[in-house]
Amino acid sequence: MIVPIELKNTNTINYNVTIDTLPSLSFDTSVVIVTNPTVAKYHLETLRTKINAHKLHVVTVPDGEEYKTLKTVEDILSQCFEHKLDRKSLLIALGGGVIGDMTGFTASLYQRGIDFIQVPTTLLSQVDASVGGKTGVNNAYGKNLIGAFYQPKAVYIDPSFLETLPPREFSAGIAEVVKMAVMFDEDFFSYLQNADFDNVDTIKEIIRKSIELKAWVVNQDEKEAGIRAVLNYGHTFGHVVENETDYKKYLHGEAVAIGIIMANALAVELKLLSQEEANKITKLLTKVSLPTKYIIKDIDQFYEHFFLDKKSSKGNIKFILPHSIGGHKMLNNIDENIVKKILFNFGEK
Amino acid sequence: MIVPIELKNTNTINYNVTIDTLPSLSFDTSVVIVTNPTVAKYHLETLRTKINAHKLHVVTVPDGEEYKTLKTVEDILSQCFEHKLDRKSLLIALGGGVIGDMTGFTASLYQRGIDFIQVPTTLLSQVDASVGGKTGVNNAYGKNLIGAFYQPKAVYIDPSFLETLPPREFSAGIAEVVKMAVMFDEDFFSYLQNADFDNVDTIKEIIRKSIELKAWVVNQDEKEAGIRAVLNYGHTFGHVVENETDYKKYLHGEAVAIGIIMANALAVELKLLSQEEANKITKLLTKVSLPTKYIIKDIDQFYEHFFLDKKSSKGNIKFILPHSIGGHKMLNNIDENIVKKILFNFGEK
Repeated sequence: MIVPIELKNTNTINYNVTIDTLPSLSFDTSVVIVTNPTVAKYHLETLRTKINAHKLHVVTVPDGEEYKTLKTVEDILSQCFEHKLDRKSLLIALGGGVIGDMTGFTASLYQRGIDFIQVPTTLLSQVDASVGGKTGVNNAYGKNLIGAFYQPKAVYIDPSFLETLPPREFSAGIAEVVKMAVMFDEDFFSYLQNADFDNVDTIKEIIRKSIELKAWVVNQDEKEAGIRAVLNYGHTFGHVVENETDYKKYLHGEAVAIGIIMANALAVELKLLSQEEANKITKLLTKVSLPTKYIIKDIDQFYEHFFLDKKSSKGNIKFILPHSIGGHKMLNNIDENIVKKILFNFGEK
Repeated sequence: MIVPIELKNTNTINYNVTIDTLPSLSFDTSVVIVTNPTVAKYHLETLRTKINAHKLHVVTVPDGEEYKTLKTVEDILSQCFEHKLDRKSLLIALGGGVIGDMTGFTASLYQRGIDFIQVPTTLLSQVDASVGGKTGVNNAYGKNLIGAFYQPKAVYIDPSFLETLPPREFSAGIAEVVKMAVMFDEDFFSYLQNADFDNVDTIKEIIRKSIELKAWVVNQDEKEAGIRAVLNYGHTFGHVVENETDYKKYLHGEAVAIGIIMANALAVELKLLSQEEANKITKLLTKVSLPTKYIIKDIDQFYEHFFLDKKSSKGNIKFILPHSIGGHKMLNNIDENIVKKILFNFGEK
């Protein structure tokens, strides 16, 4: 006999991303702020003074991508249990993408899910990580390989937090902005070409536009079955670059910039992008001092590393390429020789 | 400025629970069977011969609730990475509730979610764990405190698997069946009073009815905001009993049976249930040799342990009590003295 099960999940998830000076926030529950010492030094007091909660705790984890592990998440969970959080309690992620990903993941796991709020403090996390619900950690096999799809209850983006951000990290954030523009919006790309990145109103506008584009994409495809994969433009190559350099030499956004250059070279080869367009993208990345060069030491090994990527199902590599500026194309079966020809151009001369 | 985010998640989750001899199953992906040595000894070969997959791997974890930990889930994850599973791969849980909960949880975490199928081999997991999507592990702070809501792709219940089940485990499964009947269905309760638990068709019918009731409940309340909490009848007390006896003396269903007796005593005190009805329930539990007696050594400590339960938000204990047989009532604020009076009746004389 067969019992058909139909579970209706018609919940629409709504939340606001506020791009402004951090407002005062009141909660009648226990609240745990998760942050790291670097961020805490600059912004924890600001956040503390804005929060009114039943009980307020702070959990600090070490700073750095190398601590984005299940071990750290377990530590956060343990502290949440020590603070006797219940199902109505709330976590606040104060920090960049690493803090956001781990806090969201912890919230998804604690008693099978409690609320969390994002207060992203880097440009990268403000434009990218605050929408989409991807949470998780790295492990020995690669980046973000363990995690959950889990949405925040609210996101508060205070652009003044960027004032303490090192210039390299600011630029790394711009790499993701360029990615959005190249994939989806030619006008936005033009805007970026002429933008003054020192102007706070320009930054607000860039954040707003990036988030709107990302929300539009995620809304069509929360679980990354289709169009959301386009957000991985630059990442297929970039992840290998990060992996080959032990996640030490480049910030994520810097590796993505290199990945964008590589994807563009492949797109030019496949006549999806003109050399002039590729040059424009390179110029925009260079404008914010992002790296655009990388020397591949072992081409076969670089190619093999594609298959470690979780988007590479059943041995296929999914390449996300620009189709002119403002358009995109997903290709699953690019001939190995063509890809290696492109990689060869990045090889040692 | 505020950017409103609206993510439409209108996915209806559909899957079938098949209650019959295990059919042949074909997959064009990699498949990993997760099981333990005890179950593997009896049923792994049966399952293996039924499965046709691109690649078929078996991951074995130690048998027992004490291994239902994040550590074991990490081990399963690592083996999945070693077998290079991709996002289209599939896990199959072959075993009881512990295997099912950990396999589902692993599936939810692997690359943020891959499919899994349940092949429950105990009566408890057949009637209870195969519907509802609760997955997770225990930790030092209690049971199922870390986890995710994650639905299987399909459930295959082969009642012949129960032939190798120890009688104690069979009875433990009946405790959850009695729970469903008392909470929701007086006719089903009468059916159970007269049922011959040695008859395979009766068992099939009991499984079908229990699953239908559970699906009906879960459908109204996937995330346990309301009516789903009713499924915790017997569990609020039962969890404390399990905790006090280090999860060693009683099987989960046995502790639930004791919990049902305690909840009933409270319900009789509050005039929600007549003494005659309570006696009928006790008689049905006794019919399958379930324990109905327990001596509480320290009443204050027993009471304190309620607050470790994840359903006890902000210091309130949520009691799920029968309102006659076939009905239920959720009470949040029962006076401590009334509860302790009931506990006292279970105290040492």
